[in-house]
Amino acid sequence: MTDSPDALDHAPDRPLLRLLPGRDRRVKGGHPWAYSNEIAMTPAARALPAGTPIRLEGDDGAKYGTWLFNPHSLIAARFLSPHPGIVLDKRFFRGRLADCMALRDRLVGAPYYRLVHAEADRLPGLVIDRYDDVLALQANSAGMELATPLLVEALRDLIGPRAIVARNDAGTRKLEGLPEESRLLLGDDATARVQEGGLDFSIDLLSGQKTGWFFDQRDNRLRVAALSRGTTVLDAFCHTGGFGLLAAAAGAAKVTLLDRSEHALALAMDTAQRHGFGDRVSAVKGEAMETLERMLSEGQRFEVVVADPPAFAKARKDQPVAMKAYARLARMAAGLVAPGGILFIASCSHHVSPGDFTDAVAHGISRTRRPARLLATTGAGPDHPVHPLLPESAYLKGLLFHLPE
Amino acid sequence: MTDSPDALDHAPDRPLLRLLPGRDRRVKGGHPWAYSNEIAMTPAARALPAGTPIRLEGDDGAKYGTWLFNPHSLIAARFLSPHPGIVLDKRFFRGRLADCMALRDRLVGAPYYRLVHAEADRLPGLVIDRYDDVLALQANSAGMELATPLLVEALRDLIGPRAIVARNDAGTRKLEGLPEESRLLLGDDATARVQEGGLDFSIDLLSGQKTGWFFDQRDNRLRVAALSRGTTVLDAFCHTGGFGLLAAAAGAAKVTLLDRSEHALALAMDTAQRHGFGDRVSAVKGEAMETLERMLSEGQRFEVVVADPPAFAKARKDQPVAMKAYARLARMAAGLVAPGGILFIASCSHHVSPGDFTDAVAHGISRTRRPARLLATTGAGPDHPVHPLLPESAYLKGLLFHLPE
Repeated sequence: MTDSPDALDHAPDRPLLRLLPGRDRRVKGGHPWAYSNEIAMTPAARALPAGTPIRLEGDDGAKYGTWLFNPHSLIAARFLSPHPGIVLDKRFFRGRLADCMALRDRLVGAPYYRLVHAEADRLPGLVIDRYDDVLALQANSAGMELATPLLVEALRDLIGPRAIVARNDAGTRKLEGLPEESRLLLGDDATARVQEGGLDFSIDLLSGQKTGWFFDQRDNRLRVAALSRGTTVLDAFCHTGGFGLLAAAAGAAKVTLLDRSEHALALAMDTAQRHGFGDRVSAVKGEAMETLERMLSEGQRFEVVVADPPAFAKARKDQPVAMKAYARLARMAAGLVAPGGILFIASCSHHVSPGDFTDAVAHGISRTRRPARLLATTGAGPDHPVHPLLPESAYLKGLLFHLPE
Repeated sequence: MTDSPDALDHAPDRPLLRLLPGRDRRVKGGHPWAYSNEIAMTPAARALPAGTPIRLEGDDGAKYGTWLFNPHSLIAARFLSPHPGIVLDKRFFRGRLADCMALRDRLVGAPYYRLVHAEADRLPGLVIDRYDDVLALQANSAGMELATPLLVEALRDLIGPRAIVARNDAGTRKLEGLPEESRLLLGDDATARVQEGGLDFSIDLLSGQKTGWFFDQRDNRLRVAALSRGTTVLDAFCHTGGFGLLAAAAGAAKVTLLDRSEHALALAMDTAQRHGFGDRVSAVKGEAMETLERMLSEGQRFEVVVADPPAFAKARKDQPVAMKAYARLARMAAGLVAPGGILFIASCSHHVSPGDFTDAVAHGISRTRRPARLLATTGAGPDHPVHPLLPESAYLKGLLFHLPE
């Protein structure tokens, strides 16, 4: 662990940057980002180290407080505090983190949640997942990269974690000029556990094979599980089995897990056996899209089908291809639903809007010529809050359908 | 009650109507409506009584099954069944209603719900709310108006209701050329009760003053109540007090109900007293927007604020004015939230999209210069399903915010 400085900068010397004339509309309206073409990029500004705290003002002298600046990023400044002279020490970050923790404890009630969700939590670019006394941290902005030692100190005070893992392998770090890396920031053991729906899942936060946990689907898993008692369930793209195993715990008669990763399936089956319902759960290893097509042609049917794929659109240019893929997935998944059954289908593609996703899925289902009711349009759980002026950061979209006889 | 005919029509004589050449794209894609400019409006078609079942085919001979036709409506035909010769008798409607009831019993678990939600339930234009053994029916299409006697018979078989009330006073009936009226179709007593969140509400389904129940907010009421323990709550536009009283039942310290209707407030206070927490609930009679402005200027603050107004946009042309009104409401409601508190704000305007509503509310909140987290974007409960190709019929939008200190 690095030694922490007392504060991120010396507040009285905090550089002053100005918005360009006529380019203050969004910031004035409360938007938490200033783009590089909105800021007067003087040679001095360009020379500032990535992540430097700055004071931001309008060309008219309007004061916008303290922002974190990155001269190399399209998102050149991220709002941190309305106070231009605020001291950015451990106490500051502990305050922000304590506010995040109090909210999660109120909303979730057990120490397994997304503790910090970036801009909405006033820690721009920072994501922290909490697995009781193990924390996984992602610094997706240069400012939060610089603040990481202070954040680690603040988290020690606040939670006293056994381990903190930096999971700095998100592609978004490239946009900030940050390297991709995964390492321990505190402690020496990156294994952790998640409790959800009465089950206990083992995870490894440093393993080469991605076997972490997706807190964002918590409420959706519980919702599907509540509809699964006595049913046959297919969990496609199951990863470590969250949807399927919670359905089994809620009384599903038979659960089929489908994933391409043998490692993830093995972890899922281990969880099933540990909880005494391994006999009701079976694993199918295969590429999900191909396997669904095969199951469909074999006439297999399930009373509950879950299709929660990885992002089909990794970039904006993938959007048209992703729309076709979601429609195809919806057609196959709906086709596998027994009469009177339930379909839950999700997208975590940032580049597919909620409306577009609903359209693609509705189109895919309509190709089955079966009637369908859209019961609920859902998103990530409330421990993934969204900044009101960044509604596009609500990346997770879930659709729950009933397919009548 | 009218005597029921055996069936809506004589299926073998069902008139055949055709889509116009090149106008079959939407119907072919599974859309449940055909517009008047998509159908060949022959003199014989124009002469058909409103609501007549027809067989619909494409110009190419493609068969689209049985639809309900209204030559006087922009929505000229509404999909009923893929079978062109299906017999539309009591048994048919009982089957559809039984499917609706089985789904609600699975989703809701107590006999207080929206039993039928129109197109998504394959009974186009029909809405039925169930208050245990009292039903409130709205026929918003000429076809469902014609089918009402058969529906009443089917409901008698299925539920054996004590009363069925026709609440045919929705403005949408005008578009179908139907009169507005409220009357008993069965039984002689239109009073009913709703149980929700452990409380018991009295309602009168025929009263001149609208005191029915809004099932669509059930899950949102429970969600807000779960966050209200020990807090001070303001329920603006409270109607008969659903949000506020459920919060009181969940342990809110003090609940302020605000509505313009003395009658609705009296019913709410009666409910509070009947359940033994009248001392924690107070009623303020007043126009909500003016009263909120006054409370704000007086420095009043609440730890949970609910703002669930009637539709601000009754028609498409009202949209710009409604956007301003939602922004203003959001500014005032957010301003009344104590530091660390919760705001729930909703819109039931069909003519304001979810994205536009979020924008208006975000804009209003940003004017308070307070940070805010959008915790959840919600809609109506799952007993209000949506036809996948009519996503715009998801009229209810709810936004749940946390406003940090």
